[in-house]
Amino acid sequence: MQNPNKETISEWFKGLQDSICEGLETLDGKSQFVQDKWERSEGGGGRTRTFKEGALIEKGGVNFSAVFGPTPSKILEALKLEKADFFATGVSIVLHPKNPWVPIIHMNVRYFEMDNGIWWFGGGIDLTPHIIIPEKAVLFHENLKKTCDKHNSTYYEEFKRWADDYFYLSHRKETRGIGGIFFDRLAEKDQVTKSDRWEFVKNVGSSFVPIYSEAVENLREKEWSDEDKKWQELRRGRYVEFNLVHDKGTKFGLDTDGRTESILVSMPPIAQWQYNFAPENQQHLQTLELLKKGIDWVNYTS
Amino acid sequence: MQNPNKETISEWFKGLQDSICEGLETLDGKSQFVQDKWERSEGGGGRTRTFKEGALIEKGGVNFSAVFGPTPSKILEALKLEKADFFATGVSIVLHPKNPWVPIIHMNVRYFEMDNGIWWFGGGIDLTPHIIIPEKAVLFHENLKKTCDKHNSTYYEEFKRWADDYFYLSHRKETRGIGGIFFDRLAEKDQVTKSDRWEFVKNVGSSFVPIYSEAVENLREKEWSDEDKKWQELRRGRYVEFNLVHDKGTKFGLDTDGRTESILVSMPPIAQWQYNFAPENQQHLQTLELLKKGIDWVNYTS
Repeated sequence: MQNPNKETISEWFKGLQDSICEGLETLDGKSQFVQDKWERSEGGGGRTRTFKEGALIEKGGVNFSAVFGPTPSKILEALKLEKADFFATGVSIVLHPKNPWVPIIHMNVRYFEMDNGIWWFGGGIDLTPHIIIPEKAVLFHENLKKTCDKHNSTYYEEFKRWADDYFYLSHRKETRGIGGIFFDRLAEKDQVTKSDRWEFVKNVGSSFVPIYSEAVENLREKEWSDEDKKWQELRRGRYVEFNLVHDKGTKFGLDTDGRTESILVSMPPIAQWQYNFAPENQQHLQTLELLKKGIDWVNYTS
Repeated sequence: MQNPNKETISEWFKGLQDSICEGLETLDGKSQFVQDKWERSEGGGGRTRTFKEGALIEKGGVNFSAVFGPTPSKILEALKLEKADFFATGVSIVLHPKNPWVPIIHMNVRYFEMDNGIWWFGGGIDLTPHIIIPEKAVLFHENLKKTCDKHNSTYYEEFKRWADDYFYLSHRKETRGIGGIFFDRLAEKDQVTKSDRWEFVKNVGSSFVPIYSEAVENLREKEWSDEDKKWQELRRGRYVEFNLVHDKGTKFGLDTDGRTESILVSMPPIAQWQYNFAPENQQHLQTLELLKKGIDWVNYTS
């Protein structure tokens, strides 16, 4: 297969945004995305699509962007380069559900290249249940493994570990959720071509709606208590902590004068903090016990 | 006057915590502080005092700590030192009021020394109204100026500018609130002795309850609308953004394995985020216009 160029990749991502938004509107059944097109003075722009007050999704965003120009100095320093122009494109998603039983989901697929020939893909999908239901966690990881296994038998294990390490709140000594897959700087390697990487990234993107649909199944109608709702808002507080304190993408975007409202589309509608909160509910307590690195979800038995 | 040593400073700070908590309980009239004593494995510890569901204060904390041990590598690197033991003590406060008309307040006084003879004081007081009332902002800054002027005619101007620069959300291009005073690394300089610096820091600490009492006067009884409440929660979202993205003290504490629950006592009880929110209310709009650096509040006329 031919190696894709940046126009091909960016156009495909744009189409992915369209199909995901369509899929999510159907899944939600009540609300619609609203689009903001924006331009970046240094080059490029994006389409920020936000969603609110749905039947399933309380607040969410599905962003597409394709930006270019002189490479930000932070990247140049990290790569020990003096100067280069860059092109970056991607789709990123965060969905905060109304029902505390439904998990928060995050997905991102992205491509980066410089005019010196350096390029890579990055991305991943991870799940943050407010209340972890082990069978659903197993299902989610099985689905990711299936997506990965189509491409490379080492991907799932490698990218699952990467997600565990990345989505980690060191100041809380807990993971953000049950992880998923995370990968970055995927370039050519041994027998793996750019076209192979691209097929994988496309499959991750295309798997989003089916995987999320399964993840919410049987949960979106589940009744919740006031205690569950409060717990959800406290867990959303942790989500805020991760995104603002640890997430490299958020930090980089805010540091390099990215479009703040598009970046912070990931924030929940409402979050709570309470000093030294300790849950009493059994399922909430169990959730805390499962917010650990290294759980082999695919082979998990409780 | 004799130069104070670390024991004297730390004991005084402990007493300050007592008197401030007492003053705030009287001012609130409904709830009380609850204390958690904690120890740090490397040396020292603290008293975290938290407050919730008061008549005036919805959530707040008044922390005292005195910690010591090997200096964290981040400080050593910044100071280009190889090794040193440190001692750090201070009181820090954040109060989130129930009523949207009442401002959020933050105060901190601290002392740091190393066994190589290096020492400094730091601290400040700043105000974050959800809705800025210019006359109250003027009063607040006049009070800070009075406190500063007793010690040095240059302090207010210098430390007011420092607060403008420090309490700034670069990713929003807005200040956290109306600023106040901020100072760091105050050591001996020209004719100014350690004892002079100490007298100043003590006065900043002692001025907290009277200044806050004036800041809330005539506001705590003010009626608010649902629109004001929502606006308060959105503004609290910005407070969260500042503390987690920009605040050096928070970042340092979380990075060096500080006591997370004590550090994040600064978080509001509830915060909201809404994509691209634009207020319609005149007073909310005016507030946004006043979240700028360099407003000469003491001489402000609207």
